[in-house]
Order: sequence, then C-alpha cells, then structure tokens
Amino acid sequence: MTALDTATLTGGVTAAAGYRAAGVACGIKANGGPDIALLVSETPASAAAVFTTNVAQAAPILVSKEHLAREGRASAVVVNSGCANACTGADGLAHARDMTRLTAAAVGCAPHDVLVASTGVIGVTLPMAKVRRGIELAAAALAPDGGADAARAIMTTDPFPKEAAAEIVTATGTFRVGGMAKGSGMIEPLMATMLGFVTTDAQVAPALLQRALKAAVDDTFNAITVDGECSTNDCVFALANGASGVLLAEDDMPLLVGALKQVCEPLAIAVVRGGEGATKVFTIRVIGARTVEDARMTARAIANSPLVKTAVHGADPNWGRLVAVAGRATRTLVLDRAKVRIGPVELFADGAPHDERAPDAAEYLRRSDVELEVDLGTGGSGEARMWSCDLTAEYVRINADYRT
Amino acid sequence: MTALDTATLTGGVTAAAGYRAAGVACGIKANGGPDIALLVSETPASAAAVFTTNVAQAAPILVSKEHLAREGRASAVVVNSGCANACTGADGLAHARDMTRLTAAAVGCAPHDVLVASTGVIGVTLPMAKVRRGIELAAAALAPDGGADAARAIMTTDPFPKEAAAEIVTATGTFRVGGMAKGSGMIEPLMATMLGFVTTDAQVAPALLQRALKAAVDDTFNAITVDGECSTNDCVFALANGASGVLLAEDDMPLLVGALKQVCEPLAIAVVRGGEGATKVFTIRVIGARTVEDARMTARAIANSPLVKTAVHGADPNWGRLVAVAGRATRTLVLDRAKVRIGPVELFADGAPHDERAPDAAEYLRRSDVELEVDLGTGGSGEARMWSCDLTAEYVRINADYRT
Repeated sequence: MTALDTATLTGGVTAAAGYRAAGVACGIKANGGPDIALLVSETPASAAAVFTTNVAQAAPILVSKEHLAREGRASAVVVNSGCANACTGADGLAHARDMTRLTAAAVGCAPHDVLVASTGVIGVTLPMAKVRRGIELAAAALAPDGGADAARAIMTTDPFPKEAAAEIVTATGTFRVGGMAKGSGMIEPLMATMLGFVTTDAQVAPALLQRALKAAVDDTFNAITVDGECSTNDCVFALANGASGVLLAEDDMPLLVGALKQVCEPLAIAVVRGGEGATKVFTIRVIGARTVEDARMTARAIANSPLVKTAVHGADPNWGRLVAVAGRATRTLVLDRAKVRIGPVELFADGAPHDERAPDAAEYLRRSDVELEVDLGTGGSGEARMWSCDLTAEYVRINADYRT
Repeated sequence: MTALDTATLTGGVTAAAGYRAAGVACGIKANGGPDIALLVSETPASAAAVFTTNVAQAAPILVSKEHLAREGRASAVVVNSGCANACTGADGLAHARDMTRLTAAAVGCAPHDVLVASTGVIGVTLPMAKVRRGIELAAAALAPDGGADAARAIMTTDPFPKEAAAEIVTATGTFRVGGMAKGSGMIEPLMATMLGFVTTDAQVAPALLQRALKAAVDDTFNAITVDGECSTNDCVFALANGASGVLLAEDDMPLLVGALKQVCEPLAIAVVRGGEGATKVFTIRVIGARTVEDARMTARAIANSPLVKTAVHGADPNWGRLVAVAGRATRTLVLDRAKVRIGPVELFADGAPHDERAPDAAEYLRRSDVELEVDLGTGGSGEARMWSCDLTAEYVRINADYRT
C-alpha cells in the first residue's frame, strides 16, 4: 500500500481519532506553569518506544520499559515536567509506579497499561501530593482537542510547544498521525532524544510499530543535536489505536515509516529551533564519505562543535572550522579533494581556499535557516544529514542559572 | 638517578642554558601585536615532538614531521601566530618550507634543522613578504632572556602569555627545563593540544626525549580541554641541548618525565585558565572505574560537557548533570553505588541525593579553582584526572566574532 495523498494538520497528539489529552498545573513548577500532561486512547492501543541509552536511567524509563515489555500495549501516558525523577533511588521508583497507579485509577485501566515519563531537574524528589492532585485534574480535563494543552505541559526551558500532525490517504482508507515533543537542553543525537509522543489511528501490530518507530526516529529525533548531551529521561512513545479502521501490515512498513517521519521530522526540527538559546537552525550534510557510518560520525561532530555553532551564530563563513572538525572526526578525510559549501557558496575545493567568495557566504549566513555541506573527498557514496542550532550567550545564561 | 631538589624558575624557554629567543611584530596580525617567535639552541639539540592527530594537518606540521624524522635533531624553531597556514594547499606547503629556509639563513644552520609551527585562522594564505621581514627582525633580536617575548608572539586569543621553568638538582649536576605554550581555542584532550615548546639543557638522546615527552604530554597537555576541539596545527616540541653537562640515560626516564611534567603541567593548566572566555578552572577526577581507560573517557566527557561547564560558571551544584554525562560516557556506571562530590561536599551517594548539602556546594563553587569528583561505583581502581574551564557568554562572543 502506498500513500495516495498526504496533508499536514493541526491538533498534535489528538489529531488522530480516538485520543483525548489534557495539560494542567499542579505546582511542581515554581512558576505555576502547566506540569502534568495526560494522553489517553479510547481503546487499548499498540504501543512502542525508543529509550535513552544513558546508563543512568530515570525511574519513569525503568517503569515504562517494564510495562511495554508485557504485551506492547498501552491505554494512557502520563508525563510530568519540572522534575526528572532521575537519580532518586528506591523512592523515585516507587513514585513512578504510583504515577501509573494513580493514572490507571483516574482513567479506568490497569496500571501496566499506563506509560510514564518525567522531565526536569535531575536528583530532586517528586512532590507526590501535588502529582496526585495533578493527575486527578488532568483526568477531569481530558478532551478530544486537548493536544495543545498537553504539549504545553511537557515543556521545561522550551521557548514554544512542539506539535505536528498529518493525514495519509491510502486505497483502503485515510489515517492520521499526530505528535508532540519536548526539547531544549540535554539534546544529543546518539539515541532517542528528549520526550516525544506520537499517536496514530491506524491499526498496527506492536512489533511492527516498534520497528517502524525505530526507523523513523533514526532519521529524525536521532539526527538532531542541541548540546551533545544525552539525558537520563529521553524517550519517544508511539501509540496506534486503529480508530481509523485502516490496517497497516508488514508490507506497509515503508508507508508507516514515512507517515511517522512526517510527524517526527518537523517535531525534531522544532526541538532544534527551540534549543536553549538558539537563534538559528543549521543543516549539516556530509557527502563523499566511504560509508554512511563515517558520514554520520562526521556530521554529528560538526553538529556538536562549539566553534561551528558559534560561527553560525556570528554569520562567520569560517569553513576552516568545518574541515578541522571533519579531520578530527574521521580518519578518511582526503584533504586535497575535500569541499566545503556554505549554502550555495563553495569556499574550499581541491585543497585550496576561495576566500574571495567569503562575503557571499557571510551574507547567506544571516538567514535563520542555513545549510552547510562537507564533501570528505573519498569518492565514496556515504552521506548523512543532521540538524543543529547555534551556540549563544543565552544558552550559557539559561544553563548557568537553571536552578536558581 | 633521582631528583635531590627542584625549584621553579622564571625565564620560560630561555631558563635552560644555551638557548636564545625573540618575539617580534611583522604585520600578520591586523592589531600590530607580536606574531613571529624564534627559539634557537646554541648547539644542535636533540628534538622530539607530539603532533595533532587531526587528519587535516597544517603545512607546518607536515614540514616539521619531515625534518624531525631525519635524525631527531634541531637548532631552531620558528613560529608565527595570526595565520594557521592550514588548508592552504601546495602554496601553504611551500610557505612552510620557506619559513624554515629563511630561518636557517638568518641563524646559520641547515633548513632541515629548523622546526616550524603556525597558529591562527585556518584557510588563509601567509603574507610571505611580512613573514620574511619578521624572521630577519627576530633573528636580530635573539637574546638569552628572550623567552618572555617569544611567549607573547605565539598568542592568538590568549588573554596572557604562558611560561614555566624548573631547575632539577641531581647527584651528577643540575639541569633546567623551560617552556611556553599557546592555547585558548580548539583545545581538546585526545592529542597533543595547542602549541607547546619545552627546552632543557640536559643531554638526552632523541629517542629517549621522544618517549619522555609523550609520557609527560599524556598526563598534562593531553589531560586538558577548553572546547573539545582538536586543531589542525597542534604540536608540542622539546629540545635538549646538553648545555648543563648533565647526561640523562635510559635509567633516568622517570626523572626526565618528572622534570618535563614540572613544566608541562603548569603550562597545561595555564592554557585552561586562559581558555577562551574562561573565568574558572575545574579539575574533574573520576575514581572507582573498572579501567583507567573508562575513567579517562568519562573524565573527558564531563570535562567537555556544556551543561557541566555552564553549571560551574553559574556556581550551580547541579550534580545530576555529572551523573547524566557519566551515564552516557560509560556503560559501566553502577548508579546505586556511584558518588558525586563537589569539593568536600558529597551530594549523591548510594543512589540517593543529599540536596540538603547543596548550599555548601554552591558556596564552594564560587571559588575560581574547583574540584569535582565522580565515583563510578564499580569498585574498580581505575581513575583519571582532567582539567577544564567554564563555558561563558564571552566564549560565544569571541568565537562568533573571531574574524570580524
């Protein structure tokens, strides 16, 4: 089955049929902002997830893994912001379990059908009396258009909420995919980054949903970076409740991956755009690598380089920094055949600089969205793409003052 | 042979007997600052070097490697700042060779007895007429107390010159070691970082000097980071001219490494203290690792973490960030036996936070030199130490505006 047509929608996680969501404030955040999000599927949904590879896994990660491992199904997802419930020992684990129990009681399902996620400061104990009240409030506020409220309630230092949704028309019917994400800091591309939540009303078996989610995440959430930091709480959840009546089977894997990417890619780029202190998004494309792995490693190093990120910030066409990073990231760079392009302007080719073109490149770099390209000069066909943001004084301000 | 006594000295690279140095301005730097340094040994000296592992090696690196490979001897070192002569193609290589020829003619030795280094912007062609004039001026200005001038002439964005020297008393006589370094940006610990120059008046065979330099650099220059960036031009040179009459042989390797470290360690820490935008130096010690390699990898990740570096800047005892970085850097962290100490204050132990002690840690973090310690909790004896600096808005300002 292939997509006959696609369209982007509003509505975030509640754009797909058969989902309700809410976002409320319960006092975890000192500023009184919304800090509990609830997402509920009307019928038990197939569920899949990609989790942080950080060894210091937060309590909600451990509990959600355990629940998903049972049969790959879920009816609800509860999320708090303002406290990561990470490095909180046995108490933290009990609190994460309590969150699933309280949610199950409030929405009418089994605790093991609830997934849980937390984001915020590490090493702080959850104020469970507030959380209990928040879950009750959220359950009472659940609405079929509650996606936007939920997207606000999962924010920490995010400057704006991140939602995306798409409709996919196929020969056997139309289905929708919706999503929301939380980003800003501790964003690093080696794993499922930040919190992401994707819903679809297609009917998909859990194992297929898991493989499709992994594939979609690899090219989207795992291809972004803000600061090269992988958190203790990163996860992306996907729910598929079948409410559209469209059944996607094994043969439809490419269609399903494509549909998930239509939501994951804009969310991932929005995470970068909302990166702490970010004023610009840049795409780094590495081509001419011996292998895709080489290209990925190089793209990741450039995307994380503080010297590249500050040059983008200052609209400085300092292509030498790209070559320097490529040269430390991969052993395979062929310097006298390498090329660097800033937007349409080739500043380095065949081992020689073209600094006379620097003013054009500087002009191009004043845009808010820019593209950088490095050809490693090996003649190979390996290539990779990543998204990153500039490094600014505001990033320093946010992270020097985060808890004060 | 062991050291009977040691003392620190002033004088930098000219503290050791039989060396002259100079630093002059020839107009490579737009601001008119000194930009050519010359270091000459009265007699041909044993020479050793550790070079950048970046594949995109600058022209002076290639030429110095070639010259050193002949017989491990050198009579002079010429250095320019303000232009890295990197990614400059065949012209750049010719220019680096010309610098050794011009220096040889000016000081009276063979071109292959001259080592060359450059630092500054990548991808810009050297103004050779100015460089020629600079080398002539520097040769005329050579003086036995010229170390301080040379140390100034190798600076780029460095806020202060970096010199160190020591005198080592042994049973068979007294010898001296002197050094200077250039740091600031593109400083990363995986290799010989930045430019460093060490002189000694001990008599040491080239092969022994090379091994001793490598050992000393591993624990000093290779244990620092400013921004995790490895440049195209990094190198540390050592010269040993025997002017003290003290002969160091194979058995004296520990003495020699110790003597070199007495100069390399303060220079390395000075590079961190003078890191771009830095206001604080922090030492990160990782203990309780399964292996030394695990400990090093973890210490390096923490030393480079923008979230740790900004927390240090803001005097925020955010120990959770240290655990998060350790958890992504090594698979061997045992969370419920790990410990985090900020100075004397233990904030995390046995899987549980001690946030009641945070005010003491915050108070401690207001110092300009602080120590962080992470015990990975494996019960192993692997440990490592690195030095790093805070990440500040000034780092962003310097690097967003470097060429403008």
